[in-house]
Amino acid sequence: MGIQNSANLKAVIRPSVEKALSLTIPKTQRAAVAFTHGGKLEIKTSEPVREPGPEDVLVHVVKTGACHTDLHALSGDWELKSKMPLIAGHEGAGYIVKVGEQVTNYKPGDRVGIKWIHDTCGICEFCLSARETVCPNQETSGFTVDGSFQEYAVAKARHVVPLPEGLSYEQAAPILCAGLTVYRGLKETEVKPGQWVVISGAGGGLGHLAVQYAKAMGMRVAAIDAGSKREFCESLGVDAFFDFQSEKNLSQAILDTTHGGAHGALLAVANPEPYKQALGYLRTWGTLVTLGLPKRGSEIPVDIFDTVMRRLTVRGSIVGSRIEAIEALQFAARGEVKVHLEVRPLSQLQEVLESMAKGDIKGRIVLDTSK
Amino acid sequence: MGIQNSANLKAVIRPSVEKALSLTIPKTQRAAVAFTHGGKLEIKTSEPVREPGPEDVLVHVVKTGACHTDLHALSGDWELKSKMPLIAGHEGAGYIVKVGEQVTNYKPGDRVGIKWIHDTCGICEFCLSARETVCPNQETSGFTVDGSFQEYAVAKARHVVPLPEGLSYEQAAPILCAGLTVYRGLKETEVKPGQWVVISGAGGGLGHLAVQYAKAMGMRVAAIDAGSKREFCESLGVDAFFDFQSEKNLSQAILDTTHGGAHGALLAVANPEPYKQALGYLRTWGTLVTLGLPKRGSEIPVDIFDTVMRRLTVRGSIVGSRIEAIEALQFAARGEVKVHLEVRPLSQLQEVLESMAKGDIKGRIVLDTSK
Amino acid sequence: MGIQNSANLKAVIRPSVEKALSLTIPKTQRAAVAFTHGGKLEIKTSEPVREPGPEDVLVHVVKTGACHTDLHALSGDWELKSKMPLIAGHEGAGYIVKVGEQVTNYKPGDRVGIKWIHDTCGICEFCLSARETVCPNQETSGFTVDGSFQEYAVAKARHVVPLPEGLSYEQAAPILCAGLTVYRGLKETEVKPGQWVVISGAGGGLGHLAVQYAKAMGMRVAAIDAGSKREFCESLGVDAFFDFQSEKNLSQAILDTTHGGAHGALLAVANPEPYKQALGYLRTWGTLVTLGLPKRGSEIPVDIFDTVMRRLTVRGSIVGSRIEAIEALQFAARGEVKVHLEVRPLSQLQEVLESMAKGDIKGRIVLDTSK
Amino acid sequence: MGIQNSANLKAVIRPSVEKALSLTIPKTQRAAVAFTHGGKLEIKTSEPVREPGPEDVLVHVVKTGACHTDLHALSGDWELKSKMPLIAGHEGAGYIVKVGEQVTNYKPGDRVGIKWIHDTCGICEFCLSARETVCPNQETSGFTVDGSFQEYAVAKARHVVPLPEGLSYEQAAPILCAGLTVYRGLKETEVKPGQWVVISGAGGGLGHLAVQYAKAMGMRVAAIDAGSKREFCESLGVDAFFDFQSEKNLSQAILDTTHGGAHGALLAVANPEPYKQALGYLRTWGTLVTLGLPKRGSEIPVDIFDTVMRRLTVRGSIVGSRIEAIEALQFAARGEVKVHLEVRPLSQLQEVLESMAKGDIKGRIVLDTSK
Repeated sequence: MGIQNSANLKAVIRPSVEKALSLTIPKTQRAAVAFTHGGKLEIKTSEPVREPGPEDVLVHVVKTGACHTDLHALSGDWELKSKMPLIAGHEGAGYIVKVGEQVTNYKPGDRVGIKWIHDTCGICEFCLSARETVCPNQETSGFTVDGSFQEYAVAKARHVVPLPEGLSYEQAAPILCAGLTVYRGLKETEVKPGQWVVISGAGGGLGHLAVQYAKAMGMRVAAIDAGSKREFCESLGVDAFFDFQSEKNLSQAILDTTHGGAHGALLAVANPEPYKQALGYLRTWGTLVTLGLPKRGSEIPVDIFDTVMRRLTVRGSIVGSRIEAIEALQFAARGEVKVHLEVRPLSQLQEVLESMAKGDIKGRIVLDTSK
Repeated sequence: MGIQNSANLKAVIRPSVEKALSLTIPKTQRAAVAFTHGGKLEIKTSEPVREPGPEDVLVHVVKTGACHTDLHALSGDWELKSKMPLIAGHEGAGYIVKVGEQVTNYKPGDRVGIKWIHDTCGICEFCLSARETVCPNQETSGFTVDGSFQEYAVAKARHVVPLPEGLSYEQAAPILCAGLTVYRGLKETEVKPGQWVVISGAGGGLGHLAVQYAKAMGMRVAAIDAGSKREFCESLGVDAFFDFQSEKNLSQAILDTTHGGAHGALLAVANPEPYKQALGYLRTWGTLVTLGLPKRGSEIPVDIFDTVMRRLTVRGSIVGSRIEAIEALQFAARGEVKVHLEVRPLSQLQEVLESMAKGDIKGRIVLDTSK
Repeated sequence: MGIQNSANLKAVIRPSVEKALSLTIPKTQRAAVAFTHGGKLEIKTSEPVREPGPEDVLVHVVKTGACHTDLHALSGDWELKSKMPLIAGHEGAGYIVKVGEQVTNYKPGDRVGIKWIHDTCGICEFCLSARETVCPNQETSGFTVDGSFQEYAVAKARHVVPLPEGLSYEQAAPILCAGLTVYRGLKETEVKPGQWVVISGAGGGLGHLAVQYAKAMGMRVAAIDAGSKREFCESLGVDAFFDFQSEKNLSQAILDTTHGGAHGALLAVANPEPYKQALGYLRTWGTLVTLGLPKRGSEIPVDIFDTVMRRLTVRGSIVGSRIEAIEALQFAARGEVKVHLEVRPLSQLQEVLESMAKGDIKGRIVLDTSK
Repeated sequence: MGIQNSANLKAVIRPSVEKALSLTIPKTQRAAVAFTHGGKLEIKTSEPVREPGPEDVLVHVVKTGACHTDLHALSGDWELKSKMPLIAGHEGAGYIVKVGEQVTNYKPGDRVGIKWIHDTCGICEFCLSARETVCPNQETSGFTVDGSFQEYAVAKARHVVPLPEGLSYEQAAPILCAGLTVYRGLKETEVKPGQWVVISGAGGGLGHLAVQYAKAMGMRVAAIDAGSKREFCESLGVDAFFDFQSEKNLSQAILDTTHGGAHGALLAVANPEPYKQALGYLRTWGTLVTLGLPKRGSEIPVDIFDTVMRRLTVRGSIVGSRIEAIEALQFAARGEVKVHLEVRPLSQLQEVLESMAKGDIKGRIVLDTSK
């Protein structure tokens, strides 16, 4: 499915491959376009294919993930608003069909991924110290520029990441945001191999990836979720499962199982209660990492006395850098992380997003742009 | 002033010195004893001098600091209550007059300090990893055991710290808790040399020490305080001063001066407003450290969206370990940190504490146990 | 085998168990005693059982590992000489039969391990910062004090480590030095989950444990060994195997497989050649950790130009701290690390040591003190 | 001297300033050109001024430092050879007179510095993790591309660094390589504020900067040099000075003064003896950092036994990243680091280099390109 990794192509046939690829680029394409915040998407089939600029690549998006952040972009419920009209989407997996004139690090045929971060300035203090995720001059895919909910997306050559050989487009797509986010979040917990991390919502889209990354990083995983998610989580190798619905005293149960509390916890929710609880089941000296992106005003209520006496740390984490995206993809390519996903046609995106908004999605949804 | 450091004494005269010292130990002594939480202290002059146990030392406390934590211990306003009756105090500087039979690391005549942490178990996961400050089995001076508001205090040989040569008892005393606490807190901000740290209440008892430690550690200091404290702070070498009373937009002023925000901030207050403000003037990727020990229920309201998007860290810090106490004392002994203090007779302790409760104290108060 | 973990014993029967245990202590015992450096061991069957001091425990050693360091202790080929006469051995797994009068953290019946480090001062700068492995005042088991090559060994209560439930004595024994040493050494390589570590001598006594710890810590393992060790290493899950005998250009082969070199390397040899080679297959910015304890004068020849241009790090690592011993045992108790070992009677210790000296041992040897 | 920082220029006059600046660019210029390795430099006065490419800036070099690396570039004594013909030099301080068409982060008039690293690929694993100093695709100023020994140098917009306001060109120049190198090297020692670092050759060009950075970073400095350098070092505030000529036992003297050895050491020599000595005066757990760039084959002889038993670390360090260059310049702009330098005309470069080769230079030499 799709084209082979360029590394596999014999040099002698390369020029003709590149030429052949360029011939495949249509003038118009399928794309999911939003015109107003909160409005319905229109699935266009004759949206123009854009020309890449000198430092861009044109990526044929084969599969693209759908992410909670797309909901925020499209509904406009953050203080920060996306551009409009907008083609959302920031988990695009495909291959390059054309490169801008100054691009030297990629060639047509190269398999690449489009991430949330479209571009960064490269020269601010954050970019210069590999903290590009907080570059104040960043452009973001499917938010400030058009993203991956289309067949042909323009991306920055310096920000797309190579897809490792052997990793399918549909497996790669959700790693580009969901996988990367939890991988980086787990690093930020500072949990060491052999120590306990709590993953809240462990059976969900982010959660089931976090469980697998944590295990691959040598952590012991205490999973929180409910009902039928237990079986799923256990199949992923969690070391303990806690049902937040049936467990009377969740914090105490975790404190008991972990012999004193978890060294770290990863949460991605908006309401304060789970955070309060987390500060309770955290081990002394532990770290709580939040990945949540609720509306401004949602707060973690950090009890000062307890935080001081037990030397707790609360930290935010936002996606991850390019090198971390490359690392996260390699875990997946080695088979250590497998996304539980359902493939749906791009034409059904509106329904998919509505299901996501209701919390009706299991695992992750990946869209096939060819349908 | 006091006895010379044992290292200076010629070995030949040592036995007679030790013997002479033991002869100086009276049967009874001056001590400030509390009988009920919230009650008045009684200044006793015939309080019995206790015998050190096998692993203890008996310290002749020459000078002792008075600390905010003493107020909490004596008033009983924490959920956690001190023993009663209680001799409070945990910044005791003096010299050893007698050692328990199993003590090998100290000899009578050695100058030592008594810290907040009286003893720790030595074998829990925290003790074994030099995080003894959170040992769940700890005993605390002037809280779970009698402290330094007396002429002769029993302390654990493994937990008293040597006072460096050339550092006076009165200068040493406030370092043992106030100095140590801010030194460790500054480390926890992860601010590197050349970066900005905000010190809130910079002209106060903790603050003026924090300013000096921060400068000695190569940090650039943005001091927050008000009114006449400006001059004092500037005399300590702060790089910028912000008057929270006259400055209309404190956060913006700090963001401007630091070209984007402070890399770290150190606060020791109880109410949420200064923390909220701090999260505003913190640089992206910055760390807010709190040293506050208010009643349980006081909270830092951490905005989730901002914390995630800017990768902020909020952390508690509690006193410091023995090795850090030794380091903190050495900064003082080298003259890099000087405590602004007033010496008062121990007999006036009640008045001193009342002034502290009202916030009427400038710098630190040190009590002379001989009066 | 042996006694149950005290945690499983009902409190009501405890006093009688303790009493029963004390009744089992014989006056004399089996022990392997050396009288001169380089001389033959004498297997005594009527060696007196010593009394524990006030801070000691008397451990009934059920199984004990034999380690290369024992060879150095007994032959006296280091500049640093052991005491004589000497009962060597420092991988003792057993249970406590008697505790000194001041011991509060253990009770008779508790399963514990005796490590290389018998005791440390607890108050030097290294002890105070959890770097007790380099305490200059340390006592070492089977070197400066008698060790585990006997049925009943005296050990310090503060330095024996609890054996986790479910871990057999024979599996525990080699973790106490070999396992601990490689676990700590791997930490010192600073290799992160997903990165490559080279383990030299991967099929050997230290090596096969290093492979398993590295995998459990999420590292990718490039194993170096020869011949039939390939199959063994592959059964342990190494990601790549390099035969140093048949591989023409070992460094190049590793550079190729790891796409640029290994992020870390762990070596425990004495001669310079493998170190030189390691500096060649190390990735730029990589770390080489040596665990070797050859005679003084054996050197790693570090090329200055290359080390600077590629920002390489060379570091020594020596056993591990108590908390790391506890961690290392827990990996084994969870089944993530299994020692390949052969059990031999203590009476055959001399032959075992001779085989070790010749390099004829596969995996680790564990001695049964009852025979 | 030179043009004002662009930040100070009123926006209204900017276009005319830029135009005026472009009019100042001559067709030909003064430059020191080498044609063969080991040959003599030719001081040309009609060397063509190059046009900047689209991502380049043309910098009017006002002052440029001369560095030991220039000697290696020009003599060709490294295995790695520079291009020929070559304009060497990589400590260029000046202002931009023209920017390439794609340059957005600088404007004519901006004061900038040219470093050793001319360009890096931006997308390798090292660039993506802010370790650009070891990018395998790097271009280097005055080595693989022409450098700063000319009046007008072409540099990459993404790699020149802004000169802070108030820092003169001549003070800035030596910071761009010498200052940066020691600043980064000090970080690599992992010495914390209050701990001891040994700086070898403390009175020299690199050394006197290292002393000042170390003090500004809160370290205690033990300086090694000889003779009249003592007075100079003491004027820089070293905490101890050791004369390697008169001190009979240098290692012992340092061990005594530092109460157990230095926590770190910074050396930049080629011969093995000083490194051996350094491993002797290093504190247990200490780190030796080398900045030396001798011919390949020069080795640090690392004793395995001692390195393991004392957990020592040996590490190479090479220049520093852009963010570190910016930090290093800010220390200088704040007056915490002052370069001791002599300004000479560019026309005397040959003599200057010959003096450097003989070791006849005190401090650093800065060349005035206008003469």
